[in-house]
Amino acid sequence: MDKPLKYAVFGAGSWATAIVKMLCENLDEVGWYMRSIYTKEHLLKEQHNPNYLSSVEFHLEQLKLSNDINETVAYADVLIFAIPSAFIHGELEKISVDISNKIIVSAVKGILPESGKLLGEHFHDIYKVPFENIAVIAGPCHAEEVALERLSYLTISCADAEKAKAIAKNLSSDYIKTKISDDIIGTEYAVMLKNIYAIAAGIAHGLGYGDNFQSVLMSNAIREMKRFIKKMHKMKRNINNSAYLGDLLVTGYSVFSRNRMFGNMIGKGYTVKSAQMEMSMVAEGYYATKSAHILNQQNKKKTKLHIINAVYDILYEGKNPKKVFQKLTEKLD
Amino acid sequence: MDKPLKYAVFGAGSWATAIVKMLCENLDEVGWYMRSIYTKEHLLKEQHNPNYLSSVEFHLEQLKLSNDINETVAYADVLIFAIPSAFIHGELEKISVDISNKIIVSAVKGILPESGKLLGEHFHDIYKVPFENIAVIAGPCHAEEVALERLSYLTISCADAEKAKAIAKNLSSDYIKTKISDDIIGTEYAVMLKNIYAIAAGIAHGLGYGDNFQSVLMSNAIREMKRFIKKMHKMKRNINNSAYLGDLLVTGYSVFSRNRMFGNMIGKGYTVKSAQMEMSMVAEGYYATKSAHILNQQNKKKTKLHIINAVYDILYEGKNPKKVFQKLTEKLD
Repeated sequence: MDKPLKYAVFGAGSWATAIVKMLCENLDEVGWYMRSIYTKEHLLKEQHNPNYLSSVEFHLEQLKLSNDINETVAYADVLIFAIPSAFIHGELEKISVDISNKIIVSAVKGILPESGKLLGEHFHDIYKVPFENIAVIAGPCHAEEVALERLSYLTISCADAEKAKAIAKNLSSDYIKTKISDDIIGTEYAVMLKNIYAIAAGIAHGLGYGDNFQSVLMSNAIREMKRFIKKMHKMKRNINNSAYLGDLLVTGYSVFSRNRMFGNMIGKGYTVKSAQMEMSMVAEGYYATKSAHILNQQNKKKTKLHIINAVYDILYEGKNPKKVFQKLTEKLD
Repeated sequence: MDKPLKYAVFGAGSWATAIVKMLCENLDEVGWYMRSIYTKEHLLKEQHNPNYLSSVEFHLEQLKLSNDINETVAYADVLIFAIPSAFIHGELEKISVDISNKIIVSAVKGILPESGKLLGEHFHDIYKVPFENIAVIAGPCHAEEVALERLSYLTISCADAEKAKAIAKNLSSDYIKTKISDDIIGTEYAVMLKNIYAIAAGIAHGLGYGDNFQSVLMSNAIREMKRFIKKMHKMKRNINNSAYLGDLLVTGYSVFSRNRMFGNMIGKGYTVKSAQMEMSMVAEGYYATKSAHILNQQNKKKTKLHIINAVYDILYEGKNPKKVFQKLTEKLD
């Protein structure tokens, strides 16, 4: 690693845009792949993303924009994926250049619905990327606050601490503090699960539950998350660290959270379809709910996932939110 | 215990008023001591507390009101104290009847500044009340939401599980769920510490920190609380239970929290004095900050209390909130 590694971000949503901004604080050039030709043209003309974090102005000389995923993959050594999990599979299928020696960073907030795998697992299994070349970026971090340059903390997880440190360094700035971790599987599941709990928080709010209940819900959620992750990958971790509890809280309590917003609409009586149509952004938790449910079904010794099951029953079984939550309140403590 | 035990509540603030309301759902009669003659007169005339939760209407035939603390102490078997910790010492000094065989319940949100003792310890040491007759009521529960009959959960801690169950039963209703615990010391300290963290959350908000930072602050706060409580009373407890984490969250995130409001004013540049004058309610966390600081100083092996120390430096050492928090951000992760 004599010459500095080149970084590229894949995706043009709010989180991808925020990560490009963070990298631009440190690197002379950042590769940026986006599917939309229109978004690229707009960026070239107006120096900002037309759809997300449009207040963030980029310097074009720092960006290596492309609509060709293979071009961007070939350009960079460190590939950061921030494409919604529902679309990523289709994007990855376009990749034809060899990526087995790249460093893969997941900033995807869920698992791939097609395979039930985490992004890291997917790259490892399909593309033979070794696990020590796979990293995860976890919050707590709303992209909107990165745009405002409000102090935020990120956790970079990688089995190889040196790589985690290098990535962390390139994301750090006045307003971004980073720490590293070796729990890639745990942090990636936490990122996925928090969105389900944020939907639950939104549903509760929409149904008229107050702050007292909300705090009980979050207190139960972090315990449920701990059980779930432990089942998936047993290791020593403090579930109250920022990457787990902090990320849950920012998503569960923040007005910026689209998952919470989606849940709120469900709680207020919208159908799943109409709530999805009303929102222009994808609520990752919707897909995560199904994935988590299936993963738990596949486990021989099932974990009690009262909250996830409640959200699943509402979103996928068409059950009445009010009744489901009434039952849920009996199971929380 | 053949005939049913009589309950009485001491105090006329919002939490005392909420507890009287909860008991009135279950008991034919509830004793209620309040210092203010005016409050008692108003209750008798208008059936509601003039100053707190004034939307709650009481049935006078259920209330045994008194301005004489000894009358109420003599009347009841179970004494629930919900007087602000700054005033309770003066009130307790008025007690002249024997209380050694009463059940004492602390709904006080702090320790007695005069002695540095928890309410339970105070009653045990001064009045020889055995520990199995001492209980603690912990949230997460904002009194304001009890007034609105929004679903809330309480934890009743007592070394004697039967007594905890009996008290829990009399507080339970359609909108109040209860659980019991044997960690009287831990829950009582948690109730006290959360108010300090709520002040910290308020200061951060007042200084312009956003949701991302807030969640990191809370994630660090629960870890700090765990260390503090463990030092005070080592036992097996899950710090993520509602009585600890839930209570922290409802206080740290809620708009109802007077501690958060107080902190917010400090963060926005009010002096401690002017913030206190502006608020008509006592911010318990103000006193708790000093107590926690002293308790930690007295410990031979001090625990790292970055957040509590930061709040202490601002409230008691006159240090600049902006500078103190800038330093604090370096210590959080």
